[in-house]
Amino acid sequence: MPVLAVNYKAYPTAFGSAGLAIALSAEKLAEQYDGIVRFILAVPATEIARISEALDKVVVYAQHVDPVEPGAYTGFIPLEAVKEAGAKGTLLNHSERRLRLSDIDLLVRRATSLGLETLVCADTPAAAAAAAVFAPTMVAVEPPELIGTGLPVSKAKPEVITSSIRMVRMINPEVPVLAGAGITSGEDAARALELGAAGVLVASAVMKAKDPEAKMLELAEALAKAAEKQG
Amino acid sequence: MPVLAVNYKAYPTAFGSAGLAIALSAEKLAEQYDGIVRFILAVPATEIARISEALDKVVVYAQHVDPVEPGAYTGFIPLEAVKEAGAKGTLLNHSERRLRLSDIDLLVRRATSLGLETLVCADTPAAAAAAAVFAPTMVAVEPPELIGTGLPVSKAKPEVITSSIRMVRMINPEVPVLAGAGITSGEDAARALELGAAGVLVASAVMKAKDPEAKMLELAEALAKAAEKQG
Amino acid sequence: MPVLAVNYKAYPTAFGSAGLAIALSAEKLAEQYDGIVRFILAVPATEIARISEALDKVVVYAQHVDPVEPGAYTGFIPLEAVKEAGAKGTLLNHSERRLRLSDIDLLVRRATSLGLETLVCADTPAAAAAAAVFAPTMVAVEPPELIGTGLPVSKAKPEVITSSIRMVRMINPEVPVLAGAGITSGEDAARALELGAAGVLVASAVMKAKDPEAKMLELAEALAKAAEKQG
Amino acid sequence: MPVLAVNYKAYPTAFGSAGLAIALSAEKLAEQYDGIVRFILAVPATEIARISEALDKVVVYAQHVDPVEPGAYTGFIPLEAVKEAGAKGTLLNHSERRLRLSDIDLLVRRATSLGLETLVCADTPAAAAAAAVFAPTMVAVEPPELIGTGLPVSKAKPEVITSSIRMVRMINPEVPVLAGAGITSGEDAARALELGAAGVLVASAVMKAKDPEAKMLELAEALAKAAEKQG
Repeated sequence: MPVLAVNYKAYPTAFGSAGLAIALSAEKLAEQYDGIVRFILAVPATEIARISEALDKVVVYAQHVDPVEPGAYTGFIPLEAVKEAGAKGTLLNHSERRLRLSDIDLLVRRATSLGLETLVCADTPAAAAAAAVFAPTMVAVEPPELIGTGLPVSKAKPEVITSSIRMVRMINPEVPVLAGAGITSGEDAARALELGAAGVLVASAVMKAKDPEAKMLELAEALAKAAEKQG
Repeated sequence: MPVLAVNYKAYPTAFGSAGLAIALSAEKLAEQYDGIVRFILAVPATEIARISEALDKVVVYAQHVDPVEPGAYTGFIPLEAVKEAGAKGTLLNHSERRLRLSDIDLLVRRATSLGLETLVCADTPAAAAAAAVFAPTMVAVEPPELIGTGLPVSKAKPEVITSSIRMVRMINPEVPVLAGAGITSGEDAARALELGAAGVLVASAVMKAKDPEAKMLELAEALAKAAEKQG
Repeated sequence: MPVLAVNYKAYPTAFGSAGLAIALSAEKLAEQYDGIVRFILAVPATEIARISEALDKVVVYAQHVDPVEPGAYTGFIPLEAVKEAGAKGTLLNHSERRLRLSDIDLLVRRATSLGLETLVCADTPAAAAAAAVFAPTMVAVEPPELIGTGLPVSKAKPEVITSSIRMVRMINPEVPVLAGAGITSGEDAARALELGAAGVLVASAVMKAKDPEAKMLELAEALAKAAEKQG
Repeated sequence: MPVLAVNYKAYPTAFGSAGLAIALSAEKLAEQYDGIVRFILAVPATEIARISEALDKVVVYAQHVDPVEPGAYTGFIPLEAVKEAGAKGTLLNHSERRLRLSDIDLLVRRATSLGLETLVCADTPAAAAAAAVFAPTMVAVEPPELIGTGLPVSKAKPEVITSSIRMVRMINPEVPVLAGAGITSGEDAARALELGAAGVLVASAVMKAKDPEAKMLELAEALAKAAEKQG
């Protein structure tokens, strides 16, 4: 089942009623594409509780967690905090929030033991392969120079996707690879699946869309069709 | 009106129902001491929304914010995020989450323009005075070597409190100074007020207490009496 | 005596024979302007020893130090390290290497006790004033948006210089204020002195000059004349 | 040829004449064990030039480099800086100076293209394997809880060494694995080689020794004998 992961980032539309409205749209679509497309929303820490409570089919992720256990860590967000708020997983190592190698190791291990999913971002095939060593739930490869450009990685740098998939498979064939950066249309998403990706990670395409629901529908429908074609 | 500020940190009791129960106790006391003691709870980012919705008299703070504006900042928490979630202010520069000088400058300015309070922590009289230059709502002086020890700053290092108050007044007489670090009893809190502090910032004393409500009551009552004595 | 401080940054010309050649030019000028202009070169950590050994009149600074004491800190550079290598002082808190408030406090205190000078950078008048609380040897105010632009702060934002000087004087009248950002000509430097600055902090103007010696001569001569005029 | 790598850290003996004396001792031993044991000294950035100039057989490394290219980066140390100062390689990701996954990727690639060696530290077998994906010159596995304890990893956690070697070989059989943490005697070093390590990374054992030369001799002799036994 292909993955449609939407990173809310800290866009103005990520917070409060705007963020909740996008989440409710995603929920509607997740019901419609139940068993066909898996919806993930990576929301700001402050919105996890409110959005998690309102959703059922959509999988809510944190965008980042801190490599600490619960304790005297003012201003830190441990894995337990996002789990308690309702998150089922977390992004790790997004290009805007890179983590140290040893912290990715630690966080993937701790998340797994807490029953939380992990989606580790990487900017190169080698970094994606290194991340796969830790056996996260998924990795996403995103050439940072394309993030937010509207130049889809699946067209501008398809070899980054295919190399990442090849290298990740050599390390750990069970880790699915998502494609990210510059993906804005159903066509881009479908192309990513044809290249071997297990789904897409998008942000501005949805969060800055005039009609976020229509955009998510377009992406979901394209992923569904591309997945069906692959049989 | 003296301030009783409780920093939840990331203690196990900070999250979910445990964190909410402490907040509801604080609300009860805040009603009881309405106009007499000002209650502030600095809660984890993931709990701001749930706790804010449940409280009225207590002032809810974030523990930290990131020095960014809303935008493409995955995993960051701008001031707008905590405001949208219901916070009325934020701790800044806690010893476990120190900020750069220029970011304190920026964040105090932006918080003020957004109508959010700021409580800037500092570890020395000079750092407290430097923070006061930015005209935050309050500063708190906490010698880090006493944090979590149960050795109250008001007894172990009273000169840190009095020096901080003197230096802050020279910079900006309108910035109240709270005392923190090692304060665990009503006596410690009263002593801080006698030294000239405008209140106390506590954490483990409440968060690790067998009976957090009783501990908050003890602290509030001592602050109320000490303030009354001062006329 | 006005200060001409040149920040080598990590420009290609900062290292090896290129960096040494600029240092030897500065030494020649420092002899020529002995007692008239004070020359400071802030050089990369790896070049402090070689450049210090070759110079006499010029004051060699580090560009940054880490807030640690000598010990088990792989890859860190304590104050003792730059002193041992021959530095007489250090920049702190440059806009490209901001420090935490508490680390500036600590480092200025430790540097002073080790007999090292400190030049603390700041981006706003308030930050300059806050830095002045710690009584560093000097502060430099540099609006980051002008750094490297060639738009001189002394023309584009003269009020930043004058406000900084006014606010710093209120805190600590003994801390001289240098002007930085966009200063590329003798005229810019002279204007900074006329505004009340005690000198200038430049980088690209010298390090990217076709003839760094000629550029330093131009700046020194302008500073000398402006200082003479002030009598 | 087994490797004896000594990390100077920022110990008081790392700087100035003390650091140079240890380097000259290492040079003497490196001549004595020429072709038998490879000596690497990872020295503070400020000492690279002085120590490199004085040595011939010993390989001088930096302890850390910053993930930037030469340019406007005040206080940063790019690879080009340590190369220009005479270093032949660099430690990366030491437990006291962890790097982000993407920066290890970038730095190993850039170092290789500049002809510099890289020795990437890791705290777990999985992290060592992830580092091996980037094909550094070597990796070193060091359980942080043993660093500086005198409890040798080769005795206290031999399985960390053997697991690391096994996992690294699966990723990239050409990357040698050094053992570090708690190694203080020739016996510990010999044991590491018997477990399959290609050498040892030590710090306090030499830097805090009453007689650093005697300690390096002990370690070198043990490595030489253990290597000879392996044929």
